[in-house]
Amino acid sequence: MKGQLFVISAPSGAGKTTIVEALKRRFKDLAYSISHTTRLPRKGEVDGKDYHFVTRITFEKMIEGQQFVEWAEVYGNLYGTGFSTLEEKLSSGSDVLLDLDIQGGKNIRDRFKNSVLIFLLPPSLDILENRLKKRATDSEEVIERRLGEATSDIRNCSWYDYLIINDDLETAIKETLSVILSERCRTERRLPDIRSRFHQIRL
Amino acid sequence: MKGQLFVISAPSGAGKTTIVEALKRRFKDLAYSISHTTRLPRKGEVDGKDYHFVTRITFEKMIEGQQFVEWAEVYGNLYGTGFSTLEEKLSSGSDVLLDLDIQGGKNIRDRFKNSVLIFLLPPSLDILENRLKKRATDSEEVIERRLGEATSDIRNCSWYDYLIINDDLETAIKETLSVILSERCRTERRLPDIRSRFHQIRL
Repeated sequence: MKGQLFVISAPSGAGKTTIVEALKRRFKDLAYSISHTTRLPRKGEVDGKDYHFVTRITFEKMIEGQQFVEWAEVYGNLYGTGFSTLEEKLSSGSDVLLDLDIQGGKNIRDRFKNSVLIFLLPPSLDILENRLKKRATDSEEVIERRLGEATSDIRNCSWYDYLIINDDLETAIKETLSVILSERCRTERRLPDIRSRFHQIRL
Repeated sequence: MKGQLFVISAPSGAGKTTIVEALKRRFKDLAYSISHTTRLPRKGEVDGKDYHFVTRITFEKMIEGQQFVEWAEVYGNLYGTGFSTLEEKLSSGSDVLLDLDIQGGKNIRDRFKNSVLIFLLPPSLDILENRLKKRATDSEEVIERRLGEATSDIRNCSWYDYLIINDDLETAIKETLSVILSERCRTERRLPDIRSRFHQIRL
């Protein structure tokens, strides 16, 4: 049986990184596709672990070679998910978690019909603005652009399967975990195991 | 917005009662429809709380009056779920949990298309048999009948939405909780709240 593909998307400042970390801790068997990016590593980020950090020239060659399931330019940087890594993981039966922007989510929905897409939201636009302002690293212009992006993302999130509001972090983590856990209990996922446990019964 | 209807079904000995109790503790806002039954109260059971205990004559009059969403005869006793109570609860926006046999589950699926049906299974037929034998109250004939029923139920469980194996009780509880929690995060359930939080954005 093929693995299940989970996608998590969120505007900047919704708390996606923290929640993805919690998912990775809870579900050790969840394969996590490492994206390629042309942006510079932030403090503490490790090449090949957080991202594959590559030059724009290398990235553009990979686009030409159609090596990406999706790629997108966000705030002037290129991000992409390797097609072969993803297909390979799913075919081996591993569930895969992808951390993608909304454009990436759309591409996944088109190519992988059974994927499960989760969109994470801040509690309100005001709270999002405050959160973004607290990041001392970002200029006012960057904050403005992110708020505009967030508004556009939220306007277009209604085709995602699940919407999770990150008001209380613990609640948001619990809800995201529950989406993955419950998807694994779906009848179509569970039937092979049930058939083997109840081999005396034809079902 | 109408409430969500959850159904949990299981063969005797799968541990349904314990798991339903856990759901009721965790989700205080989950309305729990009290069934009518003609069977005698077991030790500790309270009329109007565990069941509405009624005579066969009263029950049959209610059937004639079409007052049941579903009713079924199980092991010589009649069980039924009041139609008006259920519709009323759902219309008021309450999520309702129904503990029904597989016949009841079928009737709910036919009448409430958006209901979420969970089937709980024992880890194997051998383990189920051992569990049933440990109940000192049941005769060998009753055990045999229940095993036959369980086999038939398991053969027909594949149209349920979720299958949960009660091997480790804690895991089974967590999985059942996650089904309810994640269903509440579905986009169609969450959109009204999101629209009100982000009233500045048309979505």
